[in-house]
Amino acid sequence: MSRIWNFYAGPATLPLPALERARDEFLDWAGTGMSIMETSHRSKEYDQVHHEAMSLILELLGLGDEYTVLFLQGGASTQFAMLPMNFIPSGRSADYVITGSWSEKALKEANIVASGRVAATVAPEFTRVPRADELDVDPDAAYVHLTSNNTIKGTQFHEFPDTGTVPLVADMSSDFLWAPFDAGRFHLIYAGAQKNVGPSGVTVVVVRKSWLETANDGLPTMFKYATHAAKDSLYNTPPTFSIYIVRNVLDWVKAEGGLPAMERRNRKKGDLLYDVIEAHPAFYRCPVEPHSRSYMNVVFRLPSEDLEAKFVAEARAAGMVGLKGHRSVGGCRASIYNAMEPTGVQALVDFMERFARDNG
Amino acid sequence: MSRIWNFYAGPATLPLPALERARDEFLDWAGTGMSIMETSHRSKEYDQVHHEAMSLILELLGLGDEYTVLFLQGGASTQFAMLPMNFIPSGRSADYVITGSWSEKALKEANIVASGRVAATVAPEFTRVPRADELDVDPDAAYVHLTSNNTIKGTQFHEFPDTGTVPLVADMSSDFLWAPFDAGRFHLIYAGAQKNVGPSGVTVVVVRKSWLETANDGLPTMFKYATHAAKDSLYNTPPTFSIYIVRNVLDWVKAEGGLPAMERRNRKKGDLLYDVIEAHPAFYRCPVEPHSRSYMNVVFRLPSEDLEAKFVAEARAAGMVGLKGHRSVGGCRASIYNAMEPTGVQALVDFMERFARDNG
Repeated sequence: MSRIWNFYAGPATLPLPALERARDEFLDWAGTGMSIMETSHRSKEYDQVHHEAMSLILELLGLGDEYTVLFLQGGASTQFAMLPMNFIPSGRSADYVITGSWSEKALKEANIVASGRVAATVAPEFTRVPRADELDVDPDAAYVHLTSNNTIKGTQFHEFPDTGTVPLVADMSSDFLWAPFDAGRFHLIYAGAQKNVGPSGVTVVVVRKSWLETANDGLPTMFKYATHAAKDSLYNTPPTFSIYIVRNVLDWVKAEGGLPAMERRNRKKGDLLYDVIEAHPAFYRCPVEPHSRSYMNVVFRLPSEDLEAKFVAEARAAGMVGLKGHRSVGGCRASIYNAMEPTGVQALVDFMERFARDNG
Repeated sequence: MSRIWNFYAGPATLPLPALERARDEFLDWAGTGMSIMETSHRSKEYDQVHHEAMSLILELLGLGDEYTVLFLQGGASTQFAMLPMNFIPSGRSADYVITGSWSEKALKEANIVASGRVAATVAPEFTRVPRADELDVDPDAAYVHLTSNNTIKGTQFHEFPDTGTVPLVADMSSDFLWAPFDAGRFHLIYAGAQKNVGPSGVTVVVVRKSWLETANDGLPTMFKYATHAAKDSLYNTPPTFSIYIVRNVLDWVKAEGGLPAMERRNRKKGDLLYDVIEAHPAFYRCPVEPHSRSYMNVVFRLPSEDLEAKFVAEARAAGMVGLKGHRSVGGCRASIYNAMEPTGVQALVDFMERFARDNG
């Protein structure tokens, strides 16, 4: 078996120990004589995995009993609609911080189901996130929504704005659990699992329980957060195998030393890449302003699109895939989520040095 | 490794060849050097699996280009809301055939988002499905909805009613692909995969394309069938690993001989169980009327609840799990979906013979 260095933006590389554990017990899980994907979501064996995954998330975030964890389906794109359906009361609106395509999509759905307003925007370049003093928060807003990390433009919030008494909500799909942060400042956090915590098919939601009590009535049962909270995300059949893999990934995060260890690992990887880019200013260029650079998705340009295509092709031949930038912006992108090994980033850095020397 | 006989109602047993294929390439899929759950949903390798799964469903159902297959998330419970949101026009209603808990839940959601009406009901016993002549179809109904197989009560439609010009829709979560049927009579079929076609976390929808053009406007993007149809269910990140397992299961169904072979296999298994029940009328009793009995979920009672508990416990000790009836009705239930081997059912039948002799 030969594993490749996988820089895809998501679904993305997963920790090898989490995958090996799943492979080893794929046909006979925990001595049950069946795959975990074949067992009832009402079995006590599955129940233990499910609740272990919930607990690990609260533990890693340092959150207490005032929060609950939900495992939903439909990705962040479904949250774009569920959030305003539940939390914008009739006649009011919510504030959105616009930092790229994903926050624009979130705002669009708020305007379909209720009303959304722009609290700050860095359009059209999106090469940075807004400073705290650029936010114009409506004190009557139902909440302020931001995207903590922008996979396409390669930007990331390194401090979160103070929104006063207005609840703060974040789409953390692409940097959830990348480093310690004060999760207690958020009323709700959601994250499609397929970048930093697992496979596609499950969305992690962390929500302050007291906020759920203020949610709108009259919604379809499945689109109410309260439905899932009341049943520990077992109201209907959850995506059991995806949640099991998330549990394996969370176990790995904890065994590695939790979020402080993830931050050290991720900063080392990001610094390696930004350093090699800065070291070759005539060849590589990162369009993102330094204070907003993402430690999850490092975007960079080469002198020409032809060289970018050649870079991607030669990297693939050298055992590194997923380096093409998002189709909406072009260029190159290395996604280096928690699971990416520092040795994989070092391999890419070495390749970048060689490629610049050979083609510069 | 020792595999158990798994009679869970869902998530349920899967074909061993489909699982072994996944296990064997779990860390290095199709020579890519990564798990399929780590690859981009935009990669050409994943794209092939995705479209193969779509094509296999149409092929097995004998449907042509006037239908499309969608892979959605959220299970049948989400379809309960999406269907009326999309297809009940303002001021109209849809007809529901009430055959148990699941159809009642579907009706409830129709009444949250629009208006639903009962076209027939077999409440409160639910020990049969309605005859065709019992349906009172509103000719102006947006559609008629039925649940083709009722996991809890163990009933199944063995012929579908003629609803004239009113579109027919079915929740086939628990018997999708169990046997050949005239799928062309339906405008839309949906099925949570976790019973007959794969793991939980993906919902298969088969829909007549022309119907999509009549759907309501103004819905959140993710809740419009048309969003997913326009992008072959790649509008956002689909549950890639679940779809891959579905593809493996469909490949197995095709290799076994398609739906005619599934029907032979399933009728043989169901007949074995119903025969052993009928052979011990003083001990086992199936409450379902003969013409409505399900070939997917065989429900039966024993002379007392104590004996039922003993039956479930001794069966487990003998290597057969999941035989407890749904918590809402009690009793015993053997779920014998496509993947359940006839030898597994024979083992259960032998056990039932012994248990009746020893305890009768």
